Amino acid sequence: MQKATLTILGCGSALPTKRNFPSSQILEIRDKQYMIDCGEGTQIRMQQMSLKTSRLGHIFISHLHGDHCFGLIGLISTFGMLNRTADLHIHAQPDLERVMSSQLSYFCTELPFKVIFHSFNPNHHTLIFEDRSVSVYSIPLKHRVPCCGFLFEEKPRPSNIIKEMIDFYQIPTFRIPKIKQGEDFITEDGEVISNSVLTHQAVRPKRYAYCSDTAYSEKIIPIIKGVDCLYHEATFMDDELVRSKQTLHSTAKQAAEIAKRAEVGRLILGHYSARYKDHEPILEEAKSVFENTFLGEDMTVFEI
Amino acid sequence: MQKATLTILGCGSALPTKRNFPSSQILEIRDKQYMIDCGEGTQIRMQQMSLKTSRLGHIFISHLHGDHCFGLIGLISTFGMLNRTADLHIHAQPDLERVMSSQLSYFCTELPFKVIFHSFNPNHHTLIFEDRSVSVYSIPLKHRVPCCGFLFEEKPRPSNIIKEMIDFYQIPTFRIPKIKQGEDFITEDGEVISNSVLTHQAVRPKRYAYCSDTAYSEKIIPIIKGVDCLYHEATFMDDELVRSKQTLHSTAKQAAEIAKRAEVGRLILGHYSARYKDHEPILEEAKSVFENTFLGEDMTVFEI
Repeated sequence: MQKATLTILGCGSALPTKRNFPSSQILEIRDKQYMIDCGEGTQIRMQQMSLKTSRLGHIFISHLHGDHCFGLIGLISTFGMLNRTADLHIHAQPDLERVMSSQLSYFCTELPFKVIFHSFNPNHHTLIFEDRSVSVYSIPLKHRVPCCGFLFEEKPRPSNIIKEMIDFYQIPTFRIPKIKQGEDFITEDGEVISNSVLTHQAVRPKRYAYCSDTAYSEKIIPIIKGVDCLYHEATFMDDELVRSKQTLHSTAKQAAEIAKRAEVGRLILGHYSARYKDHEPILEEAKSVFENTFLGEDMTVFEI
Repeated sequence: MQKATLTILGCGSALPTKRNFPSSQILEIRDKQYMIDCGEGTQIRMQQMSLKTSRLGHIFISHLHGDHCFGLIGLISTFGMLNRTADLHIHAQPDLERVMSSQLSYFCTELPFKVIFHSFNPNHHTLIFEDRSVSVYSIPLKHRVPCCGFLFEEKPRPSNIIKEMIDFYQIPTFRIPKIKQGEDFITEDGEVISNSVLTHQAVRPKRYAYCSDTAYSEKIIPIIKGVDCLYHEATFMDDELVRSKQTLHSTAKQAAEIAKRAEVGRLILGHYSARYKDHEPILEEAKSVFENTFLGEDMTVFEI
């Protein structure tokens, strides 16, 4: 089975630092790549990691602050030079297309692929995209500008049929796909063989939530309840609680509080303020509330 | 005396690589900083080098390909967050202001400083800027889009007056500035003391030329004749001569040929195609024509 992985390209905040580029990450599920946010330097990080992106078709932009979208024009431009032909879909608030249009029409006149914008309302929790592998939902966040996170839900995989049962009940090949989808089997004698006898259940589908940028918001808890992995911003530590409230960002402790209450599998922190040279104390702060916490860092890969 | 230095932030070509960001550099003369080109990630390189830019007032953009200007919006945005108050002057072709206007008005609404665009015609060799320290001239280049390099000429410094002469001829203090500018001194007895007796000549003013992107063009030779330092693009090596002609870029050999014919002090190469993992052969090729050649690399500093 293919694993789901999260590749963090950048997890700094507005001011880049020696170690962190602005926000961008790639979620890989069932051999497809989904990019979330695209700060300046995203394509550089991809080069530095030798990341192939032929399976990247969709980019999701959380909000229209520069550190989450300034890398788009360079990425698109480079895809053009690399002769990409597959459509590139950008899911974002409607303003992005308008703001980028003059750039695209000036710098990307002869792209060998289409850039297709899909807009959504970040204030509603709604399904904004789905394909055969995943459903993507918006998660309304609490920030200085309209902003939302994204919940990626892998679609259920078909069950695995037990080979011995095919032989035992002499199941014809054409029935197998239906059984994998959950159907029972009726023998020539009219006996109903329950699906649960015939199949092993497939691996539980993965769920991943990205929440950046946001102030502490309990409203997101029901949406992200029980996800396997939560990436939650932790711009500040608890000693900067006042500043975090002013700027509508979260502290590490608050991120952990959300993780704990939402009973998530694991918490990954990111979007660190440039003031923190050492990230270990950020981790310690979060771990005091939610043990299964990890520091996101640029160019690290997590298994979901 | 303050030295003139060139800090290379990025010297890759259109596709960034593991080692090279797109084009950007900072020339520092007499305590002022002048940025040339501003590819994606310029502000990141500045952070990585811990570069202070309070003395940066002017940015010169050679041409409107993304790898020479996509970093502007992030840089301006960051200057805003850092509460810069000094005006920022951008010298570029007129299209840039138009293309950037929607971005600036969306992402940089409350900048605490002004961004002032100054346009020039890249097809003419002309004075495009001067202050008390330097004159900057355009150098028309030969590329797929209108493009020019920049010639920075430091203004002559005042001569240094010889202290012993002040005492010997009892020169009054108020005459000293004029003598430093080259005036002779007339004693009370009417004797004319030649300026050359009274002063040491100041250090010869520095001249630096930036030529990227360009095909081999002998037309630039009279303009850059005898500069102390020439940065010339060397996108390809001689084995890609055909490709260099098609794309209107230069080979390392051609860059060296220009340096040799223009009798420059030293040549710095850059704008390497991503295909060259090892840059040493590029250097070797250029050195076979012009010995005093150096490889530009990201985050290196040259004394001019």
